[in-house]
Amino acid sequence: MPETGMNEAIRAKLLSVSTATLTTIMFKRGFRNCFIGGIFPLNAEHARMAGPAYTLRYIPSREDIDQIKVFEDRSHPQRRAIEECPPGHVMVIDSRKDRGAASAGDILIARLWKRGAAGIVTDGGFRDSADIAKLPFPAFHAGPSAPTNLVRHHAIDLNVPIGCGDVAVYPGDIVVSDMDGVVVIPRAIADQVAEEAVQQTLFETFVQERVMEGESIFGLYPPSPEAREKFEAWRQQRRASEGEK
Amino acid sequence: MPETGMNEAIRAKLLSVSTATLTTIMFKRGFRNCFIGGIFPLNAEHARMAGPAYTLRYIPSREDIDQIKVFEDRSHPQRRAIEECPPGHVMVIDSRKDRGAASAGDILIARLWKRGAAGIVTDGGFRDSADIAKLPFPAFHAGPSAPTNLVRHHAIDLNVPIGCGDVAVYPGDIVVSDMDGVVVIPRAIADQVAEEAVQQTLFETFVQERVMEGESIFGLYPPSPEAREKFEAWRQQRRASEGEK
Amino acid sequence: MPETGMNEAIRAKLLSVSTATLTTIMFKRGFRNCFIGGIFPLNAEHARMAGPAYTLRYIPSREDIDQIKVFEDRSHPQRRAIEECPPGHVMVIDSRKDRGAASAGDILIARLWKRGAAGIVTDGGFRDSADIAKLPFPAFHAGPSAPTNLVRHHAIDLNVPIGCGDVAVYPGDIVVSDMDGVVVIPRAIADQVAEEAVQQTLFETFVQERVMEGESIFGLYPPSPEAREKFEAWRQQRRASEGEK
Amino acid sequence: MPETGMNEAIRAKLLSVSTATLTTIMFKRGFRNCFIGGIFPLNAEHARMAGPAYTLRYIPSREDIDQIKVFEDRSHPQRRAIEECPPGHVMVIDSRKDRGAASAGDILIARLWKRGAAGIVTDGGFRDSADIAKLPFPAFHAGPSAPTNLVRHHAIDLNVPIGCGDVAVYPGDIVVSDMDGVVVIPRAIADQVAEEAVQQTLFETFVQERVMEGESIFGLYPPSPEAREKFEAWRQQRRASEGEK
Amino acid sequence: MPETGMNEAIRAKLLSVSTATLTTIMFKRGFRNCFIGGIFPLNAEHARMAGPAYTLRYIPSREDIDQIKVFEDRSHPQRRAIEECPPGHVMVIDSRKDRGAASAGDILIARLWKRGAAGIVTDGGFRDSADIAKLPFPAFHAGPSAPTNLVRHHAIDLNVPIGCGDVAVYPGDIVVSDMDGVVVIPRAIADQVAEEAVQQTLFETFVQERVMEGESIFGLYPPSPEAREKFEAWRQQRRASEGEK
Amino acid sequence: MPETGMNEAIRAKLLSVSTATLTTIMFKRGFRNCFIGGIFPLNAEHARMAGPAYTLRYIPSREDIDQIKVFEDRSHPQRRAIEECPPGHVMVIDSRKDRGAASAGDILIARLWKRGAAGIVTDGGFRDSADIAKLPFPAFHAGPSAPTNLVRHHAIDLNVPIGCGDVAVYPGDIVVSDMDGVVVIPRAIADQVAEEAVQQTLFETFVQERVMEGESIFGLYPPSPEAREKFEAWRQQRRASEGEK
Repeated sequence: MPETGMNEAIRAKLLSVSTATLTTIMFKRGFRNCFIGGIFPLNAEHARMAGPAYTLRYIPSREDIDQIKVFEDRSHPQRRAIEECPPGHVMVIDSRKDRGAASAGDILIARLWKRGAAGIVTDGGFRDSADIAKLPFPAFHAGPSAPTNLVRHHAIDLNVPIGCGDVAVYPGDIVVSDMDGVVVIPRAIADQVAEEAVQQTLFETFVQERVMEGESIFGLYPPSPEAREKFEAWRQQRRASEGEK
Repeated sequence: MPETGMNEAIRAKLLSVSTATLTTIMFKRGFRNCFIGGIFPLNAEHARMAGPAYTLRYIPSREDIDQIKVFEDRSHPQRRAIEECPPGHVMVIDSRKDRGAASAGDILIARLWKRGAAGIVTDGGFRDSADIAKLPFPAFHAGPSAPTNLVRHHAIDLNVPIGCGDVAVYPGDIVVSDMDGVVVIPRAIADQVAEEAVQQTLFETFVQERVMEGESIFGLYPPSPEAREKFEAWRQQRRASEGEK
Repeated sequence: MPETGMNEAIRAKLLSVSTATLTTIMFKRGFRNCFIGGIFPLNAEHARMAGPAYTLRYIPSREDIDQIKVFEDRSHPQRRAIEECPPGHVMVIDSRKDRGAASAGDILIARLWKRGAAGIVTDGGFRDSADIAKLPFPAFHAGPSAPTNLVRHHAIDLNVPIGCGDVAVYPGDIVVSDMDGVVVIPRAIADQVAEEAVQQTLFETFVQERVMEGESIFGLYPPSPEAREKFEAWRQQRRASEGEK
Repeated sequence: MPETGMNEAIRAKLLSVSTATLTTIMFKRGFRNCFIGGIFPLNAEHARMAGPAYTLRYIPSREDIDQIKVFEDRSHPQRRAIEECPPGHVMVIDSRKDRGAASAGDILIARLWKRGAAGIVTDGGFRDSADIAKLPFPAFHAGPSAPTNLVRHHAIDLNVPIGCGDVAVYPGDIVVSDMDGVVVIPRAIADQVAEEAVQQTLFETFVQERVMEGESIFGLYPPSPEAREKFEAWRQQRRASEGEK
Repeated sequence: MPETGMNEAIRAKLLSVSTATLTTIMFKRGFRNCFIGGIFPLNAEHARMAGPAYTLRYIPSREDIDQIKVFEDRSHPQRRAIEECPPGHVMVIDSRKDRGAASAGDILIARLWKRGAAGIVTDGGFRDSADIAKLPFPAFHAGPSAPTNLVRHHAIDLNVPIGCGDVAVYPGDIVVSDMDGVVVIPRAIADQVAEEAVQQTLFETFVQERVMEGESIFGLYPPSPEAREKFEAWRQQRRASEGEK
Repeated sequence: MPETGMNEAIRAKLLSVSTATLTTIMFKRGFRNCFIGGIFPLNAEHARMAGPAYTLRYIPSREDIDQIKVFEDRSHPQRRAIEECPPGHVMVIDSRKDRGAASAGDILIARLWKRGAAGIVTDGGFRDSADIAKLPFPAFHAGPSAPTNLVRHHAIDLNVPIGCGDVAVYPGDIVVSDMDGVVVIPRAIADQVAEEAVQQTLFETFVQERVMEGESIFGLYPPSPEAREKFEAWRQQRRASEGEK
């Protein structure tokens, strides 16, 4: 396993398919609850990421403990998370869907990007959202939140199983995003899901071309035997033309 | 009645006025609940539409019924809706304000656009939102939702009265949108509402010009007798200058 | 005190710092609830404002009282608010977080801008949102709402203490915004908060530069004694180079 | 006008009819939004009250102002409200539907009861709910809330128009309750509404008797001409038998 | 099939088991979403019912259509529903989880009870709740709501598939309740589910007895082979003693 | 420290005061967020408990992992929690405020009671609520929920810091309840808080007596110097009379 925690060929495949397609593949395998909705990327130009989950758990803050000086402690989990999240990983924060205070801000997220992380996800909100939006880095949240983290959150655990947006996230799960949101795939099946999604995407590309040419979806989506044949022909032609290049 | 289900002159009038103005006209007639809020167009360049409602009703899905194979059935209401919605009509989906799974995706919406529909509205969410946003087609939702339709929805009825975003929608009602959202007008009064809205819009254009020149809203909005006279003069001058062109 | 209700040097300082930094300074002074979240600027190019609060209080409308003709009365508080809000002030509306009808529309907001107000904030929604978005004027709301004001709101009071988005707003409080949202600072401490925020911003600029060069946040944010020294050197160099200009 | 602020015969009538009947009468007059729902009486044995509204307005608390010592000030509006609410009146509190801290507790409510108030209503919560439930006094809230008032609320105004549970309440409006919740009737029409409600209640008593004897609601509710005749006969017999007593 | 729409022996079995046990049996068969939560019985002494669903669908009301006189029409679906729901059936109303107006009131519910229905369920609220609570009749709602039905609802359909509390309800589905809420079982599997639930309940009765005698749940719940043997012995003894009676 | 985890004299004091009084004492020490609201006791006769927190953390369930057979594993955290929670402790469950499936049922709660626990709290719901309500055991939830735990929850951790109802709960924190809800007190200050609450309660008993005799709250609550004197006299008389017994 590379330091980045996943096979780069699989990562590339996952980056070439949509979360919509991935949730369909997951649904066929019995997974109905693997999509973190209600969050969006701060930088729409950088909405795509794929990588293993590295988690950070927050609990509600307490007035006597969560004073501004706590960040002076190097072992504070929020700061450790930023410096310890391995390259190629996606940091996923359980903020209990509470956007009342920031899950993180621009300095920490810039550092995370610099360290080579694949992206960051919270079911709460980030502060300094305009500055984060300028980074070429996938960052997903439920909306901006200026108040300092300690107003609502206390970082308590690194890399334990968490909930994020009502979805279970285990460390190492493969996290994939696009403009729709974020899908979480159990590590053990990520390769097969990626492969199946690539195939499904190829088919949907074919379908979309037909639809754009004015064809009905009846007999096309899902395909009749005849449409399957046409798809096969289209696929071979495509491969051939790609081979020519 | 044309195939598109409405008089094109009325459609043009409705496309020239705002939903804000339309809800004011509706309020004067006793309608307080005709605006579907909390939804927005995926493509801000294509936020305007006007057309008769063609409805699709969803109920919650059930695990034994709503398996992926259901879409192989040509009579499945979601697929029929896409192929049967008449040109010029707006498909309105009752998704019970549940954004937990997609109301539709890019292939179906592209097909609906190709078939000449005027637009599509759900009080849930669409998947493949980035691709839908590229279509020159008015599509309104409450936010993206990647999971496949069957995770939460079961298409059950075509073209029956529904609720969408807490508003009653009867087949044939005239549906109009802009960046604010979507207004639903009973068919029987749509012509009069359109006409009154055009008049009101003309007046508000006059007012906005005055305001931009630094005039107070007192005596202007609503107008004093004197302001009414000025408006009349402005209107005639405008007509005259339009006549010249 | 100038007509604009605040010292312009303080306003300039507040416009140079983020709401994130301001909420941190406020937190250090014991203020945990001074940020109005869940609202955003209609025109992202004009998200920054700072000025004293001028308030407008709405209560729920009542069918017999809130008929369209009420606006003919010059003493109607909504219309008076628009014409009486002093230059340089921020109009803050208590809409009870109810986005079911418009807090205001494009004509009133254009007039307010023309009159020199610094901005407008509601915890409800504005109508004609596309037109408001074209004004070079900071306007914050929770999302668009076409229905006419009277469907849900009745303007009752001018310039009394209100709640807006669960935050207390007293007339004269200093209101500051950016893309994250809106922070409310008690007038009596606004100068000190502004000064401290400027200092903190300078330090964070230094930190961000270090982070962009690849430095760890450990020992930097918050700073070790050594990092403090480096910051001092950086600050003096910066001053020197600014002096050169 | 008596000190209790209303005609006692009207009060008696209102106490003899249900809030359901009252909202129907109000609906016939065009009032759709006069019922405060989602609140309930702490003491189910004392769910009925009727009286003029005396209002108290809360805004969100602010950490520097709302310290425990504020209650030492006799002019603090919460304490004044308790001592100044006239006998026979219903205190209605605008708590912004925030149940995060108590609107009041058992001592203040006991004092209010002792002073002869007709009841108390909040769209937030009361503390010491078990003790309040033992008082023979109508008190309505959305659910218990132990935290001291100042955690969320700041009492700011006495006897101004407010919103309570999304309903407008003007001082002097007639407030009536039962187990369903609380209805607010504009003072000017309260007498007529009461009278009409008494008549409607008499009819519904007749209907309920018929239904209990097994009669169909068709032709009964609403009544056919024949059913109206039967009702008239029933009413006269009832009057006669009451006359005999 | 009897007029009551179900086998009375099955009904008796379902009335002898809990909704908790039924949802477990359903979960084993792949049903995760068959429980209508957030609703409760008005009369806690009459929380148990079992019977086939007879459905009523509401959409949002519209001001011009939904005037008080509509109830004079015998074919109004709400009134027809009350007179046509077959004996032994449970009326289930899709109120779109909107408690802003009454789904029904005491007169209609009394009539439904008189006609022999098994119960009534809404995901909205009933009015005259105190009077309904006195009927020996299972009626479930989300909380009381005094406003007349037409303020929010328009009855549109009888006995079509609906959603109630986010759960799919098809006419004829078997509906079972207790103090926890309401479970919906597809008709085709109701007999088997009932049988399996009776067996599971017997086992849980045995477990609860052991627990009350101080036994650990380890090895008991779920049972070890040894515990299974003990249960078998207990069951036979129970049968024997029942046989003696 | 006794096996029950706390000094029994402190427990007795805490059981003699209300959560309302405790939150006031906490507020004076700077704690604004220590009350778990929106939950209530299933058995109103057993609403009082006090004891150290023993925590159980749930994350969202995942379809492949959370199958019914998982409970056969003795090390399953939910089952271990029930058998390992020390006597005198309060089990507090982080259910992420999700009432969509049961946090626990009657068998587990009966076992917990038998083992001598002081009570159980969830911010979700319990199943078999009618049976739990018959146990002489404090159990707090947000409302009943029949679906089996695995539909929404996966037990992951024992006795780690958690959030429950937006409040931080650290193992060993002292948890106290009454009909209003549940307050969480940091262990280190529990003794002082208890003592101060007992004093405050004594004073409020005196105040309530005065109020019941018709006295004004002005000068009494909070007390004037004169009222303090009267209270002192009352306290000494009370002690004396208690001494006589």
